[in-house]
Amino acid sequence: MYRDRIRLPSLSSKVMSAADAAALIQDGMTVGMSGFTRAGEAKAVPHALAERAKQEPLKITLMTGASLGNDLDKQLTEAGVLSRRMPFQVDSTLRKAINAGQVMFIDQHLSETVEQLRNKQLKLPDLAVIEAVAITEDGHIVPTTSVGNSASFAIFAKQVIVEINLAHNPNLEGLHDIYIPSYRPTRTPIPLVKVDDRIGSTAIPIDPAKIVAIVITEQPDSPSTVTPPDSETQAIANHLIAFLKEEVADGRMTNKLGPLQAGIGNIANAVMCGLIDSPFEDLTMYSEVLQDSTFDLIDAGKLSFASGSSITLSSRRNSDVFGNLERYKEKLVLRPQEISNHPEVVRRLGIIGINTALEFDLYGNVNSTHVCGTRMMNGIGGSGDFARNAHLAIFVTKSIAKGGAISSVVPMVSHVDHTEHDVDILVTEIGLADLRGLAPRERARTIIDNCVHPMYRDALNDYFERACALGGHTPHILREALSWHMNLEETGKMLAD
Amino acid sequence: MYRDRIRLPSLSSKVMSAADAAALIQDGMTVGMSGFTRAGEAKAVPHALAERAKQEPLKITLMTGASLGNDLDKQLTEAGVLSRRMPFQVDSTLRKAINAGQVMFIDQHLSETVEQLRNKQLKLPDLAVIEAVAITEDGHIVPTTSVGNSASFAIFAKQVIVEINLAHNPNLEGLHDIYIPSYRPTRTPIPLVKVDDRIGSTAIPIDPAKIVAIVITEQPDSPSTVTPPDSETQAIANHLIAFLKEEVADGRMTNKLGPLQAGIGNIANAVMCGLIDSPFEDLTMYSEVLQDSTFDLIDAGKLSFASGSSITLSSRRNSDVFGNLERYKEKLVLRPQEISNHPEVVRRLGIIGINTALEFDLYGNVNSTHVCGTRMMNGIGGSGDFARNAHLAIFVTKSIAKGGAISSVVPMVSHVDHTEHDVDILVTEIGLADLRGLAPRERARTIIDNCVHPMYRDALNDYFERACALGGHTPHILREALSWHMNLEETGKMLAD
Repeated sequence: MYRDRIRLPSLSSKVMSAADAAALIQDGMTVGMSGFTRAGEAKAVPHALAERAKQEPLKITLMTGASLGNDLDKQLTEAGVLSRRMPFQVDSTLRKAINAGQVMFIDQHLSETVEQLRNKQLKLPDLAVIEAVAITEDGHIVPTTSVGNSASFAIFAKQVIVEINLAHNPNLEGLHDIYIPSYRPTRTPIPLVKVDDRIGSTAIPIDPAKIVAIVITEQPDSPSTVTPPDSETQAIANHLIAFLKEEVADGRMTNKLGPLQAGIGNIANAVMCGLIDSPFEDLTMYSEVLQDSTFDLIDAGKLSFASGSSITLSSRRNSDVFGNLERYKEKLVLRPQEISNHPEVVRRLGIIGINTALEFDLYGNVNSTHVCGTRMMNGIGGSGDFARNAHLAIFVTKSIAKGGAISSVVPMVSHVDHTEHDVDILVTEIGLADLRGLAPRERARTIIDNCVHPMYRDALNDYFERACALGGHTPHILREALSWHMNLEETGKMLAD
Repeated sequence: MYRDRIRLPSLSSKVMSAADAAALIQDGMTVGMSGFTRAGEAKAVPHALAERAKQEPLKITLMTGASLGNDLDKQLTEAGVLSRRMPFQVDSTLRKAINAGQVMFIDQHLSETVEQLRNKQLKLPDLAVIEAVAITEDGHIVPTTSVGNSASFAIFAKQVIVEINLAHNPNLEGLHDIYIPSYRPTRTPIPLVKVDDRIGSTAIPIDPAKIVAIVITEQPDSPSTVTPPDSETQAIANHLIAFLKEEVADGRMTNKLGPLQAGIGNIANAVMCGLIDSPFEDLTMYSEVLQDSTFDLIDAGKLSFASGSSITLSSRRNSDVFGNLERYKEKLVLRPQEISNHPEVVRRLGIIGINTALEFDLYGNVNSTHVCGTRMMNGIGGSGDFARNAHLAIFVTKSIAKGGAISSVVPMVSHVDHTEHDVDILVTEIGLADLRGLAPRERARTIIDNCVHPMYRDALNDYFERACALGGHTPHILREALSWHMNLEETGKMLAD
């Protein structure tokens, strides 16, 4: 039974139902689960856990790679299973619980979770639940559509539950490159110098004796919710491509650009789609998540290699890519998120990092996470891993939201995830601000002139001029700095009509 | 003449007065000068430049490693020479000009300036002015008490002026280790895996034909202004040492700790001095600046090796260390600040980074630079380079300032240099908050209970409780979040009596 999927015969006795496997998870445990950007998450066991928690009180700390699909965070939240959750999420039910203070959410740079585990600065997972396409002859685990933190979770946990998911193409085996940094003080450089370098193994090396349960599943990943480009995301893409052309013309990069990273979501995906009709050639990606646009670029002959930590596709693209995986496999590698996002590698390779801002301010500080400074949206994810060390740290957003009730450019951001020191380029559909080498007052001028929606330009100019009259390296009027956010909370719009 | 200092004979014809050398600097030029934490700065040429600017209009962009001594930033500011200044400064006259918007100051992570030059994202220096103890037989430059950005400035500049400073011990030669990362896309890992690894050359390799002037000087570095520990800095040191002992007891590090980094200034110096009487042994430093405490620790037999980018000593220590350099030389290396602060190396080595906060907030965000969100103090310096990738990112500050008019712990910081994602440990003389693995609401509880001065504890508790009642992952009352800073600006104190 499943002999090609469980190739170490002694493990076949571990096959059991999801409910029986979930029973191994005890109240108070720390559990590490696979899953990154709704790809490759363990599916049956967390569902069974949520079901069980309807019958008996059960609380765990749940660590994953990033977000889960299949409404699992919703199910676990509604069942009251989550006492602590890290390092990222995108679920609206869980978000409400986080903002109500019911779930303690630890919002981390995605490259850092397993480093903190390795250093025993976070409690190690008691148990790991990892989705796999197969278990090898050596008892090693072959991940599915994401690597995320799965390798380190399996290595650190005392017990491992494997979900063999028959819905995934078994040909995913060979796609992964599992490299784990060694312990200090004898750690050596990560030997990755090109996006397509393979530096590790194709399966997660663990002692098979730790595998306490194997659950067979057939549930596919959730499709991505990415929408096609609209006129505004297209305008953002156009501004950015015009800028990159100038960078090439000015001799700061070649027509191959640098390795591209794009955050998850519609805007970054639209920007990547925009490269299809660009003059750039032989592009590469060194990113977290490989979205539809990655494969569109490969199909267009624009992209020669893509390194990521997961593959998250729309329904449109899913069967096409995974049904024809042999067409793409040589151009892809999936790595642990520690490596896909590692500052050492990001700085070495000179990545062009494109991430989405929730809002940014006159001086180039970026808020990626908190609505009105208080309410968590999703989490910082990998944006900080990339922006800090990128060759170009680019943040994109539409200039307004909610029909103009909200300006994405504000006097002072209500929460800072990326400081003025870490932001090179800001783009809205209005235009692009190049902040490199500028002092704060110069940045403000550039941002107002290029990125702000006309509805808000006069108000920001007025704020900036009155702030400058008060003085300071970074002029502000403290009494008004957060007033747009206060107005929004109190009246539903940042400025009165 | 100076045959042991200018060992390439063809260069002896380049010796000239400081005024003649300064005349090579033209209006509008970008000039890179040596100097880091008041150590090893070019002295005679900038002084002559300031003198010349009293006679004729002259504006330059000045880049250094970090801060200059000998009141040079003051002289250059008063003479109106500085149109742009980067990446750090500590001068009160320059600070005023920056805050008045008269000098455009670009406040950068210290590891990043030369990376941006290498990528042509900043204008390359037209001319470099580098202090040296000697020029080698090959025409290479041997720096003095700092490396800073000197190597890359000299490599990138079209013309180089060398100041041979006879006041420095010529035995400084051999102390430096000049390693320059290669260009992308063929950049390789930085081959530094231990604090005492030597990976480069002992002099700055340039084409000697670029040396257009040599100026002989005899002016010493300014002494550091560090003051001896007081009862509060001693209390901070004690809390931190007690914490580090627990880390050892809990098996998270050995009695050797990790490589130590300490920011410049009294508190960090006091913390390092506190280690003299600690049970830790065989310590190492991987830091920017080596201060008095470094040598006190070596003398005490506690510190076996120190890597830095500069040596900045008090009058008390200066002649003792540099007069007996052979006693210390084998235990020291000075590197370019790009390498001393490099994220790749900081993460690999697992550094314990100790830096000073101006203020921090309930949720662990740190302001290192801006008074009341607007007025620049000094700059972020290397604190971000270390904090982001450190094994432990520690920030220290006294809990109150100005006799209690100011609390260093506030509801919301008025400027963010280090986000909640990057801060592990906060220490005041009141106590220590360990934020690792905590959600924002838990961090607030820990910070209020451990770090806040009793004068402000009730007010912060009150703010936090009312904010929690409003909800949010990071609870705030926007209308009050910056009110302490507004009160300070309007009344001279954060809270009414």
